[in-house]
Order: sequence, then structure tokens, then C-alpha cells
Amino acid sequence: MSARCFAVDALRGLARDLLRAAGMDEEKAAVTAELLLEADLMGHTTHGLALLPAYRRELEAGRLLGTGEPATLADGAAVAVWDGGWRPGLWLAARAVDEACDRASRFGTAAIAIARSGHIGCLAAFLPRATRRGRVVLVASSDPSTATVAPFGGRRALFTPDPIAVGIPSPGDPILVDISASITTNAMSARLAREGKRGPGAWWLDAEGRASDDPAVLEADPPGTILPVGGLDHGHKGTGLAFVIEALTQGLAGFGRAEAPTTWGAAVLVQAWDPALFAGLEAFVRETGWLAERARANPPRPGVERVRVPGDRAMALRRDALARGVPLAPGIEEALAAEAARVGLAMPGPIAGGA
Amino acid sequence: MSARCFAVDALRGLARDLLRAAGMDEEKAAVTAELLLEADLMGHTTHGLALLPAYRRELEAGRLLGTGEPATLADGAAVAVWDGGWRPGLWLAARAVDEACDRASRFGTAAIAIARSGHIGCLAAFLPRATRRGRVVLVASSDPSTATVAPFGGRRALFTPDPIAVGIPSPGDPILVDISASITTNAMSARLAREGKRGPGAWWLDAEGRASDDPAVLEADPPGTILPVGGLDHGHKGTGLAFVIEALTQGLAGFGRAEAPTTWGAAVLVQAWDPALFAGLEAFVRETGWLAERARANPPRPGVERVRVPGDRAMALRRDALARGVPLAPGIEEALAAEAARVGLAMPGPIAGGA
Repeated sequence: MSARCFAVDALRGLARDLLRAAGMDEEKAAVTAELLLEADLMGHTTHGLALLPAYRRELEAGRLLGTGEPATLADGAAVAVWDGGWRPGLWLAARAVDEACDRASRFGTAAIAIARSGHIGCLAAFLPRATRRGRVVLVASSDPSTATVAPFGGRRALFTPDPIAVGIPSPGDPILVDISASITTNAMSARLAREGKRGPGAWWLDAEGRASDDPAVLEADPPGTILPVGGLDHGHKGTGLAFVIEALTQGLAGFGRAEAPTTWGAAVLVQAWDPALFAGLEAFVRETGWLAERARANPPRPGVERVRVPGDRAMALRRDALARGVPLAPGIEEALAAEAARVGLAMPGPIAGGA
Repeated sequence: MSARCFAVDALRGLARDLLRAAGMDEEKAAVTAELLLEADLMGHTTHGLALLPAYRRELEAGRLLGTGEPATLADGAAVAVWDGGWRPGLWLAARAVDEACDRASRFGTAAIAIARSGHIGCLAAFLPRATRRGRVVLVASSDPSTATVAPFGGRRALFTPDPIAVGIPSPGDPILVDISASITTNAMSARLAREGKRGPGAWWLDAEGRASDDPAVLEADPPGTILPVGGLDHGHKGTGLAFVIEALTQGLAGFGRAEAPTTWGAAVLVQAWDPALFAGLEAFVRETGWLAERARANPPRPGVERVRVPGDRAMALRRDALARGVPLAPGIEEALAAEAARVGLAMPGPIAGGA
């Protein structure tokens, strides 16, 4: 059964109401719903509305707090540290992006670190709100409560996949880079394992340190690990990136693995740059536009249709979804319908003629 | 023939005098010599004194300027842009690291972008001067005059290897991450090709886009390319990183591929963070120390002796070299001796009993 399409407004309203029903206040529910939907619009379906049931479960269990404000732990000109107090991560990170962009206008570059944030979902979803303002923005995140990635050469999990995303203004669509320090993510590994599928390469290690294409090794006892970017061949590069991301998030926020937290959440760093205070936005997009154009015109390798710039696929999917509705995989549709039924909300019907 | 060892002071003096003889003023020659030697001390032998003959050639040809000051193109609180005017890149980048660290003390984070810098050598060599001061520092560089790395899926060079290095304070030795957006570097490819060797994996593509372990494809006509980090399996991650590095260096500096420069050089971004203005240096190194300790104690995979933290090997080699002399590969020793002979300087003799 393939994905059916749903109206953007109807899904946004449902997601907001489901979060409200689990105790999230109005603003947090609206921002969280918007950004989860944004991930689905961009095709990042493991990090969109698929997360909603888990967020509701955390809210109901009191591990995620749906009300109140973060505390400011430090505030120094171009930087600040917030204690999120396990409040909704998408709402906190979006606010941090806006704040970092504001401060970058005054100082040229600025950073907000967030300790004890709730899970922040899909990093790419935060980028357009900065690139639209002509800012370069970086969002990095790690979860000190869990680990699935071993350092290169090792076989015991030490890091999370450690995503890092960078939004880069360019003439036309922005360049949206959304990568991680590991070959694949926890959510993708879980989805493949649930479907009984193998990965396209040796993306995991079993507990003994043997390379495997089977994501189920993560759930074995003792558990295996996800390989860092570069795999067995040059995984020291992925591990280097993991050290950078864990240090910039947990280190600057001052709360991480050393405190051994047990709550699902995130340490976050948001960094912004305002090209206007460097060589100017015009010069900046001249360079990024040149690169994007030459990348798209690059002759493809055999078997590759065409070369894409990071973000091209996400922006194309987003345009399609806005025009024709948001495709929801059957599993996600059913999970949302079940949540809706639990609180007496109506699940919207699919759009006739959707993709 | 194996590497012979030379006294640190003698090599530093020789390198400085050779740069002076090619027209570099005293301060620039001293800083450049110090940092080239630092790369050799850390074991980055392709980016140490091996570069000296090429730097002398550029100076003598007037393409690298040995005197004068960079111009300030923009200066906005926590950020600045310098026009290096093709002056020595190691000297410029070291000054940018110091300046970014100074400004980070005031603003929390700060950045210096450099347009038209000379080649900046080994990025890891700049990191300890920041970590010693308790700062986190990032140095990224690209060379808009040349390209050897194709975007993922393509087969025509668009990027340089695009190195990025991050120095991270930690309780003992600092964590020194020095990676690139490509699987290997130009210098390593050239060394392997010169020695008629293959790489340990499919690190290159030929001009038709076929994977190859032969670095000689880079010098074929038409030329092949170096694969991005992640290779054919997940090279979109390396390409994402390349877009970030080229945008942060050339874009913020306002001078890059769009200007089609032909001089060997670099666009540089130096970013610094002062943990004292975030959650404090003590909290920062508590987190990074925890990570480093757990990484070193990680049980190794079969065939791996022990898990290392990025920088461990460099710092161990450095201590050895300071105690017992700097090992110079025969090719590098001969090249330095030839340069010395050209200007009537004495090549120091090897240390008796060196490693």
C-alpha cells in the first residue's frame, strides 16, 4: 500500500490539537506541529509526524514539559546558554535560530547553546527561517541520554548519530545541508529493522565489531553500533565530526554525558552568521550561486540521473506537497489515526487525486 | 632508506632562513617556519617542511608576497574580513586564530574570514595556540584557484579537498580534529602516485566516473577526481560538508570561484568560542574529558590495537620528536638540502642516535 496524500492545513491542525491534548501550551504546540509537518514536506519522513506519538507519550509521562519558559544560564553579547528544562525541542531550537539570527545582525556571528532540550526532530526544518533572512545558520544536536555510535576502531556505543545541518543562502533555493557524523540514523535503522530489511552497505557493527548490513544488530544483546561516516575505510573522519558536535553541543551547554541524564532529549548548538557584516550578502550569494549552478551542471557518473545540490530534493518535494498534499506512509497514517481516536479527534480524509 | 632525525632548532632556523632568502620578512618567515615545523612534529609530513620548496618558488615568482600587511575589508564587532593580498597563509591564519580568540573573550564567539590568503598548510598546527588559551577554535580552508573533488554523483572536479580542523580543550591533551570533505588530500594522492602506489580503497574516480584505487587518475587527461568523504556509499555527506566549507570560506570572505583566481592560495574562515562565556570552561572540559576517557577505554574491534582520540597520535609523535629530533623522510631531507645549497646555507646534520 502506497502513501496517501493529506491536506497541509488539516494535518497541521491535527498535529497541533494532538499536542495540545497531551498538555502542550498553544504556542509550543503550534510551532512543534509546523516544524514536524515541515520535515514531512521535505521528505524527511522518519523525523516528521512519525514522531508525534512518541512526543505525546513523553508529555503524558511528564518527561517532556509542555508549558513554561527556558532559563537563561549565561548571556554574553553574541552568545547565550539556555536551560530548556526538557521543554519541546522544536520550539526551543526554532527560538534559538531566531535569536542567533538577531544577534548575528549586531555582532556578525552569534551562538545559542541549549542544555536539557526536548528532542529537536529534523534539523533541516529549521534552516529556511534563517536563510529567508539572508543568514547562514548551523544547527547541531546530540542526545547525552543515549548512544548508538562507537568511536572509530571501537565497538561500544559512545555517541549519538550527531546530526549537523547548515542553511546557506543562494540565489533561488537555499542550499540545505543536513548530515550526521554516522552513516545512518537511529530512526532509519529502526525502520529498516522493523521492515526486516538490510542496509545498502556495511553500515553497522555487531557487538564483536564485525561489519554488518543488518540493522537488527542494534537491538541484539549485547547491542551493536552504527558506523561513523566513512565506515571501516575512513571512519576516523566521522568520529572527528562526532567529537566536534558533542563538544559544541554538550560542552558549550555545560550538560552532557558526564551528568548521565536518562531523559530523551538533546543538547543543541545554533550558530548564525550575517554575511552583511562580512563581505556582504551579494558577494556571498555570488559564490554560493556559482557553486550550486556548477554542481547541477556537473556531468553525472554512470547510473546517476543528475547531480543535485543539498536541499534540491527537499525543496522539490516540498513544492509538490504544498501543491498536491502531504504523502503519509501507511504506518504513519495509522499511528496518527490511532492517536486522534484516543482523544476523540477526527482524522482528516486523504485528498482525492493526490499523488 | 628510512627517515633520519634532525634537531628542532636547527630545522626551524633553516626553514626561517630559506624563507628569508626568498624575500619573506622576518616575522612572516619566523611564524611560517614554526608552523611548518609544527606540522612535521605532529606527523603531518605532507603539509610540513615538504611545502617549503614550493613556497620559495611562489615567493621568487612574485605570486606570494613576503612583505606588508593584509587590508581590512570589513570589521563588525565579533567578525572581520581581511584581504590577505596573497601574503603567507600560515602567518595570516595564525594571526586570525589569535584575533578570533581575543574577540571571542569579549563576545563569546568570533570569526575572521580571509580572502586571497597564501596556502595555509596543515590546519592542525594552528589549533594548540587556541586550546592552550581555553578556546575552542575551528579553521576551514578552500582554494578557489583549483579543484580536484567532484560533487557526489558527478565526475568533474568542483571543490578542493576542503579541510576543516577543530581544536577542543580537554583536561589532558586537547582534542585535535583535522579532517576534510574528501576521502584523501591532493598531497597524499600526489605522494602515492609518485611512489607508484595504490590507495587502500576506491578513493578516486576516473574521468568517466568509474571508482579507482589508483591516484594516477588525477593526472590523466582528462583528469579524474577524489571522492568525497563517504565515497560511493554515502558521499552526499562529504559533498554536504564541502558546500558548507566553500560557503563559509569563499562566501563570507567574498572572494572565490566566481572570480576565477589563478593564484595558488586559500579562502579561510577561523571561528573561535570562549567556553567561559557559555557554561564555563570547567563544565566544558568535564564533558570533553568524559568523552575522551571513554573513547580511549572503548574495546577495540578485531585487528585494532586501541581506540584513539583525534589528536592523540599527533601529540604523541610531537613529544617524541621534541625529545629525539624531527624525522624527515629522505625525499624531504634532499629537497631541503638542495634549497639550502642554492642559497649557500648549511644543511644541518642528522642527530646521532635519532629514531
